[in-house]
Amino acid sequence: MQKRVEKSGKAGKKAAKVRRRQAADDDTVITALGLKSAPPSDAMAAYFKKCEEKLGFVPNVLKAYAFDMGKLEAFVAMYNDLMLAPSGLSKLEREMIAVAVSSANRCYYCLTAHGAAVRALGEDPVLGELMVMNFRAARLSKRERAMLDFAVKLTVEPWAVEETDRDALRKAGFSARDIWDIAAVAGFFNMSNRVATATDMRPNSVYHRQAR
Amino acid sequence: MQKRVEKSGKAGKKAAKVRRRQAADDDTVITALGLKSAPPSDAMAAYFKKCEEKLGFVPNVLKAYAFDMGKLEAFVAMYNDLMLAPSGLSKLEREMIAVAVSSANRCYYCLTAHGAAVRALGEDPVLGELMVMNFRAARLSKRERAMLDFAVKLTVEPWAVEETDRDALRKAGFSARDIWDIAAVAGFFNMSNRVATATDMRPNSVYHRQAR
Amino acid sequence: MQKRVEKSGKAGKKAAKVRRRQAADDDTVITALGLKSAPPSDAMAAYFKKCEEKLGFVPNVLKAYAFDMGKLEAFVAMYNDLMLAPSGLSKLEREMIAVAVSSANRCYYCLTAHGAAVRALGEDPVLGELMVMNFRAARLSKRERAMLDFAVKLTVEPWAVEETDRDALRKAGFSARDIWDIAAVAGFFNMSNRVATATDMRPNSVYHRQAR
Amino acid sequence: MQKRVEKSGKAGKKAAKVRRRQAADDDTVITALGLKSAPPSDAMAAYFKKCEEKLGFVPNVLKAYAFDMGKLEAFVAMYNDLMLAPSGLSKLEREMIAVAVSSANRCYYCLTAHGAAVRALGEDPVLGELMVMNFRAARLSKRERAMLDFAVKLTVEPWAVEETDRDALRKAGFSARDIWDIAAVAGFFNMSNRVATATDMRPNSVYHRQAR
Amino acid sequence: MQKRVEKSGKAGKKAAKVRRRQAADDDTVITALGLKSAPPSDAMAAYFKKCEEKLGFVPNVLKAYAFDMGKLEAFVAMYNDLMLAPSGLSKLEREMIAVAVSSANRCYYCLTAHGAAVRALGEDPVLGELMVMNFRAARLSKRERAMLDFAVKLTVEPWAVEETDRDALRKAGFSARDIWDIAAVAGFFNMSNRVATATDMRPNSVYHRQAR
Amino acid sequence: MQKRVEKSGKAGKKAAKVRRRQAADDDTVITALGLKSAPPSDAMAAYFKKCEEKLGFVPNVLKAYAFDMGKLEAFVAMYNDLMLAPSGLSKLEREMIAVAVSSANRCYYCLTAHGAAVRALGEDPVLGELMVMNFRAARLSKRERAMLDFAVKLTVEPWAVEETDRDALRKAGFSARDIWDIAAVAGFFNMSNRVATATDMRPNSVYHRQAR
Repeated sequence: MQKRVEKSGKAGKKAAKVRRRQAADDDTVITALGLKSAPPSDAMAAYFKKCEEKLGFVPNVLKAYAFDMGKLEAFVAMYNDLMLAPSGLSKLEREMIAVAVSSANRCYYCLTAHGAAVRALGEDPVLGELMVMNFRAARLSKRERAMLDFAVKLTVEPWAVEETDRDALRKAGFSARDIWDIAAVAGFFNMSNRVATATDMRPNSVYHRQAR
Repeated sequence: MQKRVEKSGKAGKKAAKVRRRQAADDDTVITALGLKSAPPSDAMAAYFKKCEEKLGFVPNVLKAYAFDMGKLEAFVAMYNDLMLAPSGLSKLEREMIAVAVSSANRCYYCLTAHGAAVRALGEDPVLGELMVMNFRAARLSKRERAMLDFAVKLTVEPWAVEETDRDALRKAGFSARDIWDIAAVAGFFNMSNRVATATDMRPNSVYHRQAR
Repeated sequence: MQKRVEKSGKAGKKAAKVRRRQAADDDTVITALGLKSAPPSDAMAAYFKKCEEKLGFVPNVLKAYAFDMGKLEAFVAMYNDLMLAPSGLSKLEREMIAVAVSSANRCYYCLTAHGAAVRALGEDPVLGELMVMNFRAARLSKRERAMLDFAVKLTVEPWAVEETDRDALRKAGFSARDIWDIAAVAGFFNMSNRVATATDMRPNSVYHRQAR
Repeated sequence: MQKRVEKSGKAGKKAAKVRRRQAADDDTVITALGLKSAPPSDAMAAYFKKCEEKLGFVPNVLKAYAFDMGKLEAFVAMYNDLMLAPSGLSKLEREMIAVAVSSANRCYYCLTAHGAAVRALGEDPVLGELMVMNFRAARLSKRERAMLDFAVKLTVEPWAVEETDRDALRKAGFSARDIWDIAAVAGFFNMSNRVATATDMRPNSVYHRQAR
Repeated sequence: MQKRVEKSGKAGKKAAKVRRRQAADDDTVITALGLKSAPPSDAMAAYFKKCEEKLGFVPNVLKAYAFDMGKLEAFVAMYNDLMLAPSGLSKLEREMIAVAVSSANRCYYCLTAHGAAVRALGEDPVLGELMVMNFRAARLSKRERAMLDFAVKLTVEPWAVEETDRDALRKAGFSARDIWDIAAVAGFFNMSNRVATATDMRPNSVYHRQAR
Repeated sequence: MQKRVEKSGKAGKKAAKVRRRQAADDDTVITALGLKSAPPSDAMAAYFKKCEEKLGFVPNVLKAYAFDMGKLEAFVAMYNDLMLAPSGLSKLEREMIAVAVSSANRCYYCLTAHGAAVRALGEDPVLGELMVMNFRAARLSKRERAMLDFAVKLTVEPWAVEETDRDALRKAGFSARDIWDIAAVAGFFNMSNRVATATDMRPNSVYHRQAR
């Protein structure tokens, strides 16, 4: 036995060394597809610059889309409208939906990037972990719970969402427009989760340490 | 028994009358949310006009998004890029992905609208039915089958999509860019299916009779 | 890119040609098993003749069973009793169960043949589509909804059907005998769906255009 | 604590007494529907008599169908053809399919009645238990395993059964006709399981002790 | 056909002979791992002797763990505490949980060994069968049903167990300590089921005939 | 809209305040059952002291079991044997199994406590996140991947684990004893996950910041 343990120990150390490089690699090899970036449009060059200034880095998802400016611009326009434009949902609530949906779909990229956003926006590191692990274990308000129950049911059995589900949101105080926004954010991450997993998209390593 | 049958017959007729109105209703009550259309932007007014000219009608999904011009424009930009812009995937192939994904998610709106598109683009009414019912029963080329296997796996168990799945696409002749497009179209309909079901979006009744 | 698109275009046209033949093939190569028809019994010869006269064709499922007259006669006897004999359920209701069950099981043959029956009996083309796509999206009476909820639960998680489920049918006005009939029709299509899929049974192509 | 245990003990004894009556009740209250038996047709009266002579009792499923002679006769004809008529599958093999399918669907009636049949026909009490509990744990021949893998896949994900599954049966030595029979028996129990569970059908208590 | 039947008959007989040996083999080849028993500690030697005296045999699960006395002692300590120590749950109730959980996980070893325990402790052979086949078909007290509903939900979707589930137990009369015990027994068999299946652990053949 | 946003903002701040207290609460209200600690046995008093010295705190799971010294001692004995005693699996490998299993079961307690252990033992914060989120996205050695594939399949479909699965471990270099250990660790966390979720067990808040 002892010999095997040591061998395993050696193999383990080598594997660990390989693995420790993975966070670093995540910042350079962003997808499994190897698509070459296109020349940035003016709008996107400005947007990347703004990311650098505000966040200190360009989120890898943007670099992944940058092989085609039309696709990148369409993605950025939809993302910013959904996550940043005025809404009856707070930015934190929208990020909570993002993470609960990404947890149902087990998407490494989105759980990492948006888990950090929940930790930061909520000023609550544990809340980010709970959204990643199991939102049902969090101490949520009735409003938050109704919102996430709807978003997660819409993710795992969309065919079964009906008027009773919309009514549960209405009873929790959500307006018709709020229901649209919950559906649209949940829908958007059901898209992003799949694009990210399909291409093995890697999150910027900086997210892991943010707002812990 | 006879009496019950008749009663059931009467109730049945009444129910049938109610139901026959539903296709007509689908053209007027487009979602369960009752959001009021916003004044159209110039771009969107022109786009709706173009729809009327080319299709003879404005797809209900566009009317559903029209409560907010920012959201409508972002949706239209992404949709047109994905489904109509140049790609290694033909337009029919993109529509086949749309319907196979929507079948996995059982989305009434998307199955109706994009089922019609497959029937029309494929000049093959039965192909549309097969995508709606079970794509595995269709007589597909190896390329088509690999594409749909990937899109449907990405839909029903996204967490399990890995390098072996991408390799299956490469072996079927798809390029890195093609893989992105398959993922992006499959992802988009995983979003649209959920927005449509969450809001009980109804397809234009005209789709049902198209290209039969 | 352009070159790839064209190649895809050529391959696409060839694939389309292959596919367009599939509806025609569906009328000649009925199963993947290639079992040879047995000499028809007098009763079955008469029954096939009656089908030709009333429907204009012999449903492929009957041709599929015709390799053995004992099996064909047993199938016909059970089918006709369930779907055509007097019952508290109307014929349309029985066909709605048939299609909702076949949708849960994604059976190409039964969705095609009985989808056409719902369109015709209901004088409602959209109702047939809704049963195929997602019965929950249809505007159903309480009676119809309770009936389909029971039939579909019995299909997807039979082990969980209990007295509370039977009570839901009773509250919707169904008698003990009606409950039997709902269960028997749902059960029958759970059998037929599996025999059809296991043998790759193909529906008569004429169904696709019926009652649109 | 001690007090609660005793209370639980008393409640337990009472519950046990109630439960012990359940096997006896299974012989008298056969379904939850309370449908009254119809006057037996000559054929069915003779068949019930034959059951009494050969088995010592009339299987409850037949009594359950006896509210309508047309339904009973159709069921008996199909059952006897499938389970008793000549086939490339032995009677034991057909019963093994019956139990493995009923296990996937967790049907109390069919597991009890056909579990007894496997024990008796196989002269192997443990084989019956294995079919009820998990057929994968049994020491099966390649032929038996291929047959049950097909039948159980057809039961739990019928939409995914394809040519490769039929090929696996062909490689295990099954003919086209054998494939039909495997599908037909698996299909039949997918029907019977659902009719039995939907009506809370109770198996004759005598089955439990047979061939142990 | 006739020829194939005979061939199948011969192959069937041979297969049956092979299979009949399997119960016997179950008593000698206890797991698929072939781990050699360690010299018994004094405590475990005494425990095995006690098993022989009380049961007439040493349960195979103990022999399976006997390659390592530390693991065996830890297993025995936890098992005896959970299943035999004082509790608000009767021993029969604990065994009912064991079997209902093992049925959800389809574990041959545990269903066989603990199915026998339910038959014996309940003095009710049919109850044991019902726990193995589908606990929902049993005539249970409200207390028993609430207990098994909790244990089985905890088994099949542990992430969804919440305060409402605990409240259902409280309403059925269970104390906080009882809830712990239900969870702990259900948890323990979720462990044992997996160790048994992972190692192909075989139950002592004597269980099959006990308390029928 | 603006008004609603503000209202949501206020509600959001209040909810955030409530939530921020939850990590603190996690250290004081350890389960939803409110069981009172029993007087510690000498062995357990010493063990708790050792935890304080080595870890700086007593893991909440131990406090949760402390209402009954027999249960606590059995749990500690089994845990220490499995996770700390000599094995062909390194301690990191055992913790990786713990987290991958707990991710499949979405257990907040175990993901938090053992996620921290993976981060610390692997000297690799990202590896801990990957085990929590989706082990398939990690850059693993063949040995690690085979080990986790087995553990997770054993968790989500235990009934389907067979000789081919054990062979995959053997091919990856695991001995019979290693296979036992993989199964035993995976089994143990399938138990612990369920006891933790059933009782709403809360992890010590200190884990969240460890080894980031």
